[in-house]
Amino acid sequence: MSAAQWAEDAARTIMDRCDQLATLTSMENGIERTYLSPQMAKAFELVGGWMRDAGLTVSIDPAGNLRGRAEGERDGLPALVLGSHLDSVPDAGKYDGILGVITALSVAEHLVKSGATATLPFALEVVGFGDEEGARFGATLLGSYALGGGWNDEWLDLTDADGVTMRQAFRDFGLDPERVAEAAHTTEDAIGYLEFHIEQGPILEQRDRALSSVSSIAAASRYMVTIHGLSCHIATPYDLRHDALTAAAEIITGIDRISREAGTRANVGEISAEPGGVNVIAGKATFSLDLRAGTDELRDETFARIWDMAADVCERYHVTMDRECIHTADSAQCDPFLRSCIEEGIEQSEGKEAFGLISYPGHDGMAVAGLLPIAMLYVRCKGGISHSPLESVREDDVAYGADAFAHAIENVATRLRAAADEAEARSAALNADVVLAMEA
Amino acid sequence: MSAAQWAEDAARTIMDRCDQLATLTSMENGIERTYLSPQMAKAFELVGGWMRDAGLTVSIDPAGNLRGRAEGERDGLPALVLGSHLDSVPDAGKYDGILGVITALSVAEHLVKSGATATLPFALEVVGFGDEEGARFGATLLGSYALGGGWNDEWLDLTDADGVTMRQAFRDFGLDPERVAEAAHTTEDAIGYLEFHIEQGPILEQRDRALSSVSSIAAASRYMVTIHGLSCHIATPYDLRHDALTAAAEIITGIDRISREAGTRANVGEISAEPGGVNVIAGKATFSLDLRAGTDELRDETFARIWDMAADVCERYHVTMDRECIHTADSAQCDPFLRSCIEEGIEQSEGKEAFGLISYPGHDGMAVAGLLPIAMLYVRCKGGISHSPLESVREDDVAYGADAFAHAIENVATRLRAAADEAEARSAALNADVVLAMEA
Repeated sequence: MSAAQWAEDAARTIMDRCDQLATLTSMENGIERTYLSPQMAKAFELVGGWMRDAGLTVSIDPAGNLRGRAEGERDGLPALVLGSHLDSVPDAGKYDGILGVITALSVAEHLVKSGATATLPFALEVVGFGDEEGARFGATLLGSYALGGGWNDEWLDLTDADGVTMRQAFRDFGLDPERVAEAAHTTEDAIGYLEFHIEQGPILEQRDRALSSVSSIAAASRYMVTIHGLSCHIATPYDLRHDALTAAAEIITGIDRISREAGTRANVGEISAEPGGVNVIAGKATFSLDLRAGTDELRDETFARIWDMAADVCERYHVTMDRECIHTADSAQCDPFLRSCIEEGIEQSEGKEAFGLISYPGHDGMAVAGLLPIAMLYVRCKGGISHSPLESVREDDVAYGADAFAHAIENVATRLRAAADEAEARSAALNADVVLAMEA
Repeated sequence: MSAAQWAEDAARTIMDRCDQLATLTSMENGIERTYLSPQMAKAFELVGGWMRDAGLTVSIDPAGNLRGRAEGERDGLPALVLGSHLDSVPDAGKYDGILGVITALSVAEHLVKSGATATLPFALEVVGFGDEEGARFGATLLGSYALGGGWNDEWLDLTDADGVTMRQAFRDFGLDPERVAEAAHTTEDAIGYLEFHIEQGPILEQRDRALSSVSSIAAASRYMVTIHGLSCHIATPYDLRHDALTAAAEIITGIDRISREAGTRANVGEISAEPGGVNVIAGKATFSLDLRAGTDELRDETFARIWDMAADVCERYHVTMDRECIHTADSAQCDPFLRSCIEEGIEQSEGKEAFGLISYPGHDGMAVAGLLPIAMLYVRCKGGISHSPLESVREDDVAYGADAFAHAIENVATRLRAAADEAEARSAALNADVVLAMEA
């Protein structure tokens, strides 16, 4: 079995377009494209051109997101939003976010050119979010929070590594920082949100499958943890030490054990010790902690176990700990109706039973979920590797994914039409009953 | 009981001179004075002036050490060398090294001015080593290796943080880099080496004592350890991770356990993780390891246990390790004869039984021990703190120490004289026997 011919052709275009976007970078030998940057402006120009060629109406919204719209069976219907992000981490791969935008665009183009959109009971909107990774200003999901109605004007005071405020960055990008919140959709003008994304994990590869749906996007919280000890010479006997780094090491070991036991995913990815001498006991150690869990409750229980363990370790090493929460996001459950439309699309494309995975990475959908029902389609990536130049996807998987994504949109339309027909039939039956009753 | 009056007076001068030397620094708000630097030239000028006032003959040797000499009962006798270092770590205290040089100078001044040197069976030499800490060129104990005959001309190619070679630094200091090795003593012109130093540990404070001798300077080796994993997203399941930082943390925890069990002193003071993202599993972690042990055998056995443990950890985390030895020094046993002269001096000064401590910090004596018998006198420092602006010593402890150091020198002289007298008497008795035998 292979994907539909149009999707196989589209996959070639999609791969080529991802390659083209990879050249719009601020890094000399790698990919980096951040929110409201000159490279993002160029990406909007390039992708906006492809959107126009696809028959979409193109705009840049007040939050610095690129949007392309195709009307449905009549103008002005509420939209089914198809989105992902066009920004990247430093030294990124070509596909995280980008593949989702470009595939949604190709799917929309197929539906427009095949005439399918003219019969859809909703408009289609393809969105390339300007910020999901948060690489420029620290705060993440900025573009998608704006679209989902969760924008916070306090973020305008955040600064980038060069000291430029987000407020100034909006002006430099030709946008009015006072009007960002106007990018928001409402439940009047949008019916739901679908996102196509690489898995960023190895499960599909392990199961020898191209596609899956997502059951939920995991709850996540991030902390910076600081251990305060006292720096002294290596000559100091153990019972008189206040060794911040060895205490941190034992806590990191404990985090690993507790997270494995709990079935969550934890990571300590940053660490430093001060003053940092080979023969000087560290007086201070600082490390990051990121923890993802399928539900908010599991996340919170696991953190409670971690802090208890850390307090014990600190007592034994005669050190103290403080922690700062730098990010927290509750889990986002995917909408059962939209998810079933995606899973049916996967079965139509791959010809195999569909299943859902918990998404441990965060996604734009988390920020949209506050306003709209969301669902996601995952496509296999090589070795589960992402946020790396080694990110890799198979063109045939992309073809299956595009095919499934188009089917999913048609499934949403079909089921909405069926529901409307049923409602009409019920209403007609009810009317008939009323007539009969009146006649009786 | 208090120290001799001359020593109490000298202690005030010594504390004042340490304060004066602290002003000769290359740091704006702290103490830093490195090998062959302009600040070291000024320190030589200042200390050299005090040496001349004390009646010593002053020179700067070919290795950039300051030397002051007082002749003994006749000119040209081999010297008893009294030394420590005048260089410092960055953001140092006032006493590590410096206190030893200045106290030796005051003791020599007392012995010269009291006429005691005129009866000594050796010359006295006070040495202020130009480098012990190794802060400028990385390699340590440069001044003392040169005096002890262990100079290596390859060191001349080492560079400082500004890219200046040691060769050039010698020229800038007015010295000929081709002649450094000429700074060496021989066993013909020196009989031993005594060093006065702050403890850099809290044992004396714990035992409520001002002074101790040193039994041995610990064996030490330093490594940079690198764990190689694979960076990936936090979404990666545990069984597919190659988490370099968590493996490093478990190894650091194991080092602490093994070193405590073995009765050694270990420290991991530097650590870094790459690429260093909150949500990115570290693909590489690097840390320093310094281990000190009372004997070479204990050090080597303990390292063997550490590397075995680390190999097990690496296997479990699917990572690999490599290590680079960046420094190694065998233990230096203090000479029993010189040590007993120091312990007798402590008892004469403090009026309490003397004892010896293992010195876990390294000292110039290690580099001299290859050529001459060595011994050390430790003085209590506050909280055992060193390599810190918080370094602190009590003036009354310095007075006890100076008094004990002067007694120690006199004890060396007394015992050498007694030994010589005994040898002469034996020789006379032998001659008498020979005469009797011949007469028989």
